[in-house]
Amino acid sequence: MKLSIIQFSPELGNIDHNISTLETLFSSMKEKPELVVLPELASTGYKFKDRNEALLYSEEVNNSRFIEFLTTRAKQMNCYMVAGFNEREGNKLYNSSVLTGPGGVVGIYRKLHLFWDEKDLFEPGNLGLPTFDTELGRIGMLICFDWMFPETWRALALKGAQLIAHPANLVLPYCQSVVPAYSLVNRLYIATANRIGTEDELTFTGQSVISGPKGEIIATGKTDTQEIISVDIDLAKALDKQITPRNNAFSDRRVDVYGNYGV
Amino acid sequence: MKLSIIQFSPELGNIDHNISTLETLFSSMKEKPELVVLPELASTGYKFKDRNEALLYSEEVNNSRFIEFLTTRAKQMNCYMVAGFNEREGNKLYNSSVLTGPGGVVGIYRKLHLFWDEKDLFEPGNLGLPTFDTELGRIGMLICFDWMFPETWRALALKGAQLIAHPANLVLPYCQSVVPAYSLVNRLYIATANRIGTEDELTFTGQSVISGPKGEIIATGKTDTQEIISVDIDLAKALDKQITPRNNAFSDRRVDVYGNYGV
Repeated sequence: MKLSIIQFSPELGNIDHNISTLETLFSSMKEKPELVVLPELASTGYKFKDRNEALLYSEEVNNSRFIEFLTTRAKQMNCYMVAGFNEREGNKLYNSSVLTGPGGVVGIYRKLHLFWDEKDLFEPGNLGLPTFDTELGRIGMLICFDWMFPETWRALALKGAQLIAHPANLVLPYCQSVVPAYSLVNRLYIATANRIGTEDELTFTGQSVISGPKGEIIATGKTDTQEIISVDIDLAKALDKQITPRNNAFSDRRVDVYGNYGV
Repeated sequence: MKLSIIQFSPELGNIDHNISTLETLFSSMKEKPELVVLPELASTGYKFKDRNEALLYSEEVNNSRFIEFLTTRAKQMNCYMVAGFNEREGNKLYNSSVLTGPGGVVGIYRKLHLFWDEKDLFEPGNLGLPTFDTELGRIGMLICFDWMFPETWRALALKGAQLIAHPANLVLPYCQSVVPAYSLVNRLYIATANRIGTEDELTFTGQSVISGPKGEIIATGKTDTQEIISVDIDLAKALDKQITPRNNAFSDRRVDVYGNYGV
């Protein structure tokens, strides 16, 4: 399948502008993607000065210009899309990502591990670590700082995720070097779509990365360039957890010793 | 503290020769180590042709020339040592490692995840993932292929291990590239002591590695050189799990979502 990551710089608090940027980027895509992964908070940018500002630019899943745009484009392009967005439910905000496709919204993930001052803006995710079945295969989502917690990747892998879409707004470069290791030990694909650009004192580190079930780095983005990174991958390979004829990454696990993540 | 890894090539089935090699290496050490980590099955070599041969060269913890030698040397050098050895208990064999020191044997770990044909020779480890308190700090042990299972590193970290000593007989180079990632996400030191040399069709990959709590690679060994790799590390740094003023690698964990490894 054809996977594309879009690395770009959302403008803070300007949903219409960000939709317009993405429209231009989608229109420029030469190869027809089957899955597109966008960064964290792609709808609004990241560094809200306070919760009121975050609230102002938040959207409900069922009443979101941003998700409506993505879904419309997913239908037109006959593909799936994953994107981070600023979600409001009632009076609560979540740092969320949406998986949408030709048939409409497939699922939502809410960031479990909030980074630094995000704790003043968002509620911690309350939807667990869901996976979603699509025609492409089973997909899980994580958002940015979730990467630091190996349990997240492992639990999604054990639930059968063949690809983990990972919208990010990384300011440090560690994650990008760790992602291939998580791919290797969990034998699955990871697509970390990181943003670029600067907001206040924050400079986002780009270098989006796609890695595969053997720990191979399939593609990486540049540090500060808006770009579409497209690759061909075979999600069936992520179903094979066999390491040697006598070793399996999953069934060799000693759940008697360290449990099973509640899976 | 001063940590030394010894990367060498044990001779198959020749415990006395391997003791002699180590004696020469210990005597050559210029800097006085406080902890020495040796490879997996340092007493006997790796590729036994069958279980009978493995049995022939196995030793009981309390009746082992190899462990007696290490403990005697640990007393003389006033240091701790970790080494892989071929352990017999009753009629059962384990791929084990010992932590010994000036006061005698501190603890034993038995490899949880057996690789390939090791399954014909050894029982799977039945001592869980213990940690051991020493004057240097709290130490955990893993052996070679255990590396593939992120639960092992995490469970030891959550039990307070500041350093994981990791005797290995690696034939692939993946582990060495993943070890710094495990250090980073668990905020602790890892000392992977890998052997060199060849047995049958197996060529061991050397490249022993020491990594620290920020994911930094502190030292690496060469591919096929017998060598002593010595570094200064500060185990107190592994007690600090704070990532940002508002993020902690341990307390930010969502145990409500993915459990806690039975810790």
